[in-house]
Amino acid sequence: MQPAQDAHHVVIVGAGFGGLEVARGLAGAPVRITIVDRRNHHLFQPLLYQVATTTLATSEIAWPTRHLLRNRRDVTTLLGKVVGVDRAAKRVLLEDGGALAYDTLVVATGARHAYFGHDEWEPYAPGLKTLEDATTIRRRILLAFEKAERESDPERRRALLTFVIIGGGPTGVELAGTIAELAHDTLRGEFRNIDTREARVVLVEAGDRVLSSFVPEQSDYALRALRRLGVEVELGTPVSECNADGVVFGDRHLPAKTIIWAAGVAASPAAEWLETAADRAGRVMVEPDLTVAGEPEIFAIGDTAHVATPDGKFVPGVAPAAKQQGRHVAATIKARLKGDATARPFRYRNDGNLATIGKRAAVIDFGWIKLTGRLAWWLWGLAHIYFLIGLRNRLTVALSWLWIYTTGQRSARLITQGDERTEARRR
Amino acid sequence: MQPAQDAHHVVIVGAGFGGLEVARGLAGAPVRITIVDRRNHHLFQPLLYQVATTTLATSEIAWPTRHLLRNRRDVTTLLGKVVGVDRAAKRVLLEDGGALAYDTLVVATGARHAYFGHDEWEPYAPGLKTLEDATTIRRRILLAFEKAERESDPERRRALLTFVIIGGGPTGVELAGTIAELAHDTLRGEFRNIDTREARVVLVEAGDRVLSSFVPEQSDYALRALRRLGVEVELGTPVSECNADGVVFGDRHLPAKTIIWAAGVAASPAAEWLETAADRAGRVMVEPDLTVAGEPEIFAIGDTAHVATPDGKFVPGVAPAAKQQGRHVAATIKARLKGDATARPFRYRNDGNLATIGKRAAVIDFGWIKLTGRLAWWLWGLAHIYFLIGLRNRLTVALSWLWIYTTGQRSARLITQGDERTEARRR
Repeated sequence: MQPAQDAHHVVIVGAGFGGLEVARGLAGAPVRITIVDRRNHHLFQPLLYQVATTTLATSEIAWPTRHLLRNRRDVTTLLGKVVGVDRAAKRVLLEDGGALAYDTLVVATGARHAYFGHDEWEPYAPGLKTLEDATTIRRRILLAFEKAERESDPERRRALLTFVIIGGGPTGVELAGTIAELAHDTLRGEFRNIDTREARVVLVEAGDRVLSSFVPEQSDYALRALRRLGVEVELGTPVSECNADGVVFGDRHLPAKTIIWAAGVAASPAAEWLETAADRAGRVMVEPDLTVAGEPEIFAIGDTAHVATPDGKFVPGVAPAAKQQGRHVAATIKARLKGDATARPFRYRNDGNLATIGKRAAVIDFGWIKLTGRLAWWLWGLAHIYFLIGLRNRLTVALSWLWIYTTGQRSARLITQGDERTEARRR
Repeated sequence: MQPAQDAHHVVIVGAGFGGLEVARGLAGAPVRITIVDRRNHHLFQPLLYQVATTTLATSEIAWPTRHLLRNRRDVTTLLGKVVGVDRAAKRVLLEDGGALAYDTLVVATGARHAYFGHDEWEPYAPGLKTLEDATTIRRRILLAFEKAERESDPERRRALLTFVIIGGGPTGVELAGTIAELAHDTLRGEFRNIDTREARVVLVEAGDRVLSSFVPEQSDYALRALRRLGVEVELGTPVSECNADGVVFGDRHLPAKTIIWAAGVAASPAAEWLETAADRAGRVMVEPDLTVAGEPEIFAIGDTAHVATPDGKFVPGVAPAAKQQGRHVAATIKARLKGDATARPFRYRNDGNLATIGKRAAVIDFGWIKLTGRLAWWLWGLAHIYFLIGLRNRLTVALSWLWIYTTGQRSARLITQGDERTEARRR
């Protein structure tokens, strides 16, 4: 259905899990929708670590947003970078000087990794939020092995074969487990001067356990599973320095040429655009109905928003939470268009918490049931294939996983964008 | 079998079709082999245009070289960029200051695109030789449609929706046909402000027919097939200018924001390294046995070599020719190690010439039989799947093609590496 040109205009900034869900929830409503994102694709972030560790190809976890919404004549998809919001004129400002007038605005712009005031660490310890981040990390991991193969100095070789992951949340645990498998299994026997099994994978966590969002028993299980894979886990040791030589944590300096940051995120600059209150991580403080204080026509959701729960905690920055918030916003907009302006508070339903450790173990916490081990791993895999978009991607990802599970071989071991001439030409 | 450390050392520069075939042909011979390439992957170049046009993912047509050779204990794979050859000391010089001593050297470093003295055109008209080239072209094509969707000026919109391919050889024809299908079929209905079917795809060829390496009847067939797909073909019109606004050919100026170069190649700088004679395209002039004049221990093969055939032509720069030359060099080295120093001339066997036009038509010239049309297309597809490496890639590429054939949908429509912030961070 093509809506009238003067229909209520909903502008959604960000085509992540939250933004897409708002568009889906508004199907059939008497509105025009414009969804704007600075990327042309929706990204399935929960599997991004598998691109970074050569398991999946970029196109297996990303889809053109306009293709996902192609049958929705009421939705216009735009590629554009938002740089501000003119609240008085009700316009979203774009980097190229353009603007989008809105009646209702939904800000769902996600988060980037944050370095707790140490942005100078970023060149040495890249984080993982975009496809480019993933191919950058993939390149660094693979290049480290290639350089080690040609390095004759034992100390430098040791640093090249040391991989440090900072942060023991799900991303850190998943990266560490997969890099260990890559080194100890996938690459084994392919080098002539080094034994890739001698590679050290070190997971550094400031807190006293990994996966702190799970129950302690599951953290203990994950710790044992990581150690079984050969990962060295350092707990209770905040990192105090990252540089070209390695990392410093506690009173130790660990020489390492590959460092990956999985320790912290900061929201996109949405709070600055909206000139509204934010928490320390930059998340917009929203009202219980997800609107911005004093702006009932502006919603903030997903990783961009700080949403308190009744028990004094806040809603975690995970895909299911963003989707639930997207649905809530769509329902609110539809109710308002019908004349019902009641402010309904958002309630978060915890659908469960999942994390994998390598290709044999996982932990799952559904609240009413907690699982670990191989069964959990299979459930994790099925759940993620189910949530992928489109039959085609489900088939190819299932094939990729089956291949790794049976042969240990990974399909996307490519070093790209690392050639200076190409880089220079691109500038 | 692990050869003795003092065994005859064969250094192969380049892990393309030619270089890999030398390594394969030397299996079981009493030699040590080192294969060095500045990329970590072997690339299946005949399908590179499908990555550039969103059909295939990068990892479907590229494999880590060391993985391909993992079971060959006699082969060491190195990632490194060759910058010269010290013929007197018999050493290959690497960019990082390292060097590799050789007993026999095989140079198989391929070609890059060339602009016939107009290198200033490169930023406006990228060519297609590497994975990065392919993702660059893919980004430009997709971005042109995205920008057109947001452009209100009809003239600028028209230029954004005009795609010019320069060069009517197999790569140009394959690119033009696929871009036409992308615009007229795959993307149709996904934009709200433009009709992608209005996109113009213009193929400009200086000669009087496309696919000049085929017989004239097949060129005519390809021309008709291209026009049926909506491609405008301009023959007999050399391009005299490429810039940010478009191209000039004959006495016409065509405003176009996306230009792709498929008109010429130049060999890698191998002739300079070897300080030996080269033809106008930079190819090393080799003896009939593929050795470099006066250097019986140095071979040049594939796109790097100018190899004359008895009828006064020269061997074309195609994958089967490189492979045949690789086998010939391996046989020569093995014969020499047995004490037979006879210089055997290389003879090129033309296994056939293939090109596709979109997803319904192809031309095939096996010499004894010439085919066009849908049967040729199916044969082309089967042949290419057969030549891909590994069951896994055959499965996924076959799946990708089946998907396009039945649904028109392409899986790799990603704009990546186009974000300035990411680019800036990477520097």
